[in-house]
Amino acid sequence: MKFSSTEKWLMRKILRMTGDPPLHLVLGRDVDNSSPSNNGGKSKPTIVVRDRKTLVQLALNPEVAFGEAYSDGRIEIHGNLVELLEEVMRSMQEGQRRGSYAKLSSWWLDRTGDNTRYGSRKNIHRHYDLNVNFYKLWLDKRMLYTCAYFPTVSTPLEDAQLAKMDHVCRKLQLQPGDKVVEAGCGWGALALHMAKHYGVTVKAFNISHEQIAFAREQTKREGLTQQVEFIEDDYRNISGRQDVFVSVGMLEHVGVDHYGELGRSIHRTIGDWGRGLVHFIGKNYPHPFSPWIRKRIFPGAYAPALSEVTRLFEPWNFSVLDVENLRMHYAKTLEHWLSRFEGSVERVTQMFGPEFVRAWRLYLAGSIAGFRSGPLQLFQVTFAGANCRQIPWTRAYLYEEQQPAVKEQKWMHATR
Amino acid sequence: MKFSSTEKWLMRKILRMTGDPPLHLVLGRDVDNSSPSNNGGKSKPTIVVRDRKTLVQLALNPEVAFGEAYSDGRIEIHGNLVELLEEVMRSMQEGQRRGSYAKLSSWWLDRTGDNTRYGSRKNIHRHYDLNVNFYKLWLDKRMLYTCAYFPTVSTPLEDAQLAKMDHVCRKLQLQPGDKVVEAGCGWGALALHMAKHYGVTVKAFNISHEQIAFAREQTKREGLTQQVEFIEDDYRNISGRQDVFVSVGMLEHVGVDHYGELGRSIHRTIGDWGRGLVHFIGKNYPHPFSPWIRKRIFPGAYAPALSEVTRLFEPWNFSVLDVENLRMHYAKTLEHWLSRFEGSVERVTQMFGPEFVRAWRLYLAGSIAGFRSGPLQLFQVTFAGANCRQIPWTRAYLYEEQQPAVKEQKWMHATR
Repeated sequence: MKFSSTEKWLMRKILRMTGDPPLHLVLGRDVDNSSPSNNGGKSKPTIVVRDRKTLVQLALNPEVAFGEAYSDGRIEIHGNLVELLEEVMRSMQEGQRRGSYAKLSSWWLDRTGDNTRYGSRKNIHRHYDLNVNFYKLWLDKRMLYTCAYFPTVSTPLEDAQLAKMDHVCRKLQLQPGDKVVEAGCGWGALALHMAKHYGVTVKAFNISHEQIAFAREQTKREGLTQQVEFIEDDYRNISGRQDVFVSVGMLEHVGVDHYGELGRSIHRTIGDWGRGLVHFIGKNYPHPFSPWIRKRIFPGAYAPALSEVTRLFEPWNFSVLDVENLRMHYAKTLEHWLSRFEGSVERVTQMFGPEFVRAWRLYLAGSIAGFRSGPLQLFQVTFAGANCRQIPWTRAYLYEEQQPAVKEQKWMHATR
Repeated sequence: MKFSSTEKWLMRKILRMTGDPPLHLVLGRDVDNSSPSNNGGKSKPTIVVRDRKTLVQLALNPEVAFGEAYSDGRIEIHGNLVELLEEVMRSMQEGQRRGSYAKLSSWWLDRTGDNTRYGSRKNIHRHYDLNVNFYKLWLDKRMLYTCAYFPTVSTPLEDAQLAKMDHVCRKLQLQPGDKVVEAGCGWGALALHMAKHYGVTVKAFNISHEQIAFAREQTKREGLTQQVEFIEDDYRNISGRQDVFVSVGMLEHVGVDHYGELGRSIHRTIGDWGRGLVHFIGKNYPHPFSPWIRKRIFPGAYAPALSEVTRLFEPWNFSVLDVENLRMHYAKTLEHWLSRFEGSVERVTQMFGPEFVRAWRLYLAGSIAGFRSGPLQLFQVTFAGANCRQIPWTRAYLYEEQQPAVKEQKWMHATR
């Protein structure tokens, strides 16, 4: 096929803007569209751009244009999508040091929907109030939509989500009778797990109406209504003194400008005597999420660098006890999700149409690539108030034996 | 005894400035001086101020005046010194939130000797170039002058210092043949340990002339001159590409204004592919050391908050993999040191006189109190370059078995 000199110039420009990753970029009027994407082939992957207008859009605004055009089929990928995205992210990271990525990103750091009380509700509704049957297709059976913890690389996802909950509970040193507050509780799995396996009482907050309704159903089904209360409200409205604060996967939706408010909520809750854990997607340095992700998948989301997260702790004299980076565990979690998602593509297409399928494929694949290649990190930060007396001597106890719930799980398997 | 109304007003003022800790403060013209300090008694401890001038100094500038007067005997303590200091630190932390401590400290945040190349040499010389025979009296036999790692509370100091070195080496995943650079190597124990037990080569930097001389002696004695090179130079002059960067107990002497230079040295050394660890005394929030400590014990020292330490990593896209807070281990280490120090008081008095003994007792006791009650933290931060491939799957391997050198140590004991 022949390209005009303008087309060639545009293609060179796009590759240069993304740090010259090892891939082919072609304008695909004449390209055979029959070869499957995700074929795992080892040759250089190819991005086929269907029309010239898309090529121009890519040159102007590569991240958003790529996401939009991939979603509606104006871009096809020949080769493995995850690996291609990994290569691009690696080369863009290099580029960033030369300044181009930073400049590009700051162009597109738009006035994201601010996470005020009202804005948060709107932003959270867009993602988490999607039909629960959609999430059931590809999450584990307890519906945990956060990074799992894989004691070994080959641990099944169901066990890894259990192990994650136990890892969190053990880091918090939960004791029967402890009063726990959870901020951003998803469909309620962690709250129920803490109550059932650690004998604590839990107040769990969430502003997603659908998730709270689901969690309340589960609570009744499991007979835990005495121990667990699900509250449809904002973290800013948490009240009452508790022993423990925990938040898994909410910080990304708080927005760095609101960490002061969150820190105040935490201190109001656990004071100088309590302890807590936050689990969140982070970055190596302050840097916004991809603008396409913010536009299409997670409006208002921001993954903080550690320097920013310290704003939760330092004004309140909290001691950071432990930070663990579980980046590769999120890549693995997402691999499980993507594979289950691909196994349900027909069903998802029926529910939301092919463009939704392609957008979510890109989001899941891009996240795998991000956690593998480094722009995304996953931090668990354990902290304690200045007068907290429950500080473990070493971390060895976290690794001494199988997590209790996993053990029970194994036992349940054995007797079935 | 009778106090004038001015004296009473001064005493009330001093107690108020320190947050009203549970102790007696008396002007001691008439107080019996024969009861020993550190008597472990359970009654409220008493600070006996010998003269009115000292009382006035305390009211003007409590931290420095207390240190100076305790050192030269114008203040006596009836009761346990460590516990008294703990109470004062706790109440001062509370007070700080009301603003008084912060204000006091900022009065005394003097223009500390800046840690330029020249200033660092001067500052380091004052502390670390003291006669090595002095440190031999109370450190472990390998001369580690940093926080040990106690697998159990009752681990002996010698084993705990070995375990610390292994904990660091394992966090760094040292492999035979790795090239390691150590910044601030003390008397050389860690460098020699890494070479001997992990088969790596080490370039170890230090600007203390006495320590480097001692370390070189040890290297010859242990036959490790092919593997370990001790270099009397500043961290800013580190050059050459290495696999691993490690620094244990140096960051406190770098000064927060120079973290940019240190970060640059680290990145110049390990690039995007290497890995590293920094071990340092930290704080819960940015706050200077006690002005007396800076005046008499550690000129130019500063213990950073985590928000400040991120300046080492974020400009270079380093990923923080693990942060461990070993505060209680430093309290325990210092208890061992203080107890050994007290056992050698006669010898130290012969070497440096009674005022030195009292100043160092206060420094060691105050540090125990600081780590126990919270103003001082001890952080180990493990990090890796953006392209580093040696990222452990979980941290379980750190706790799987006895540390190799401790094992060997045990074996050596058994065959003797």
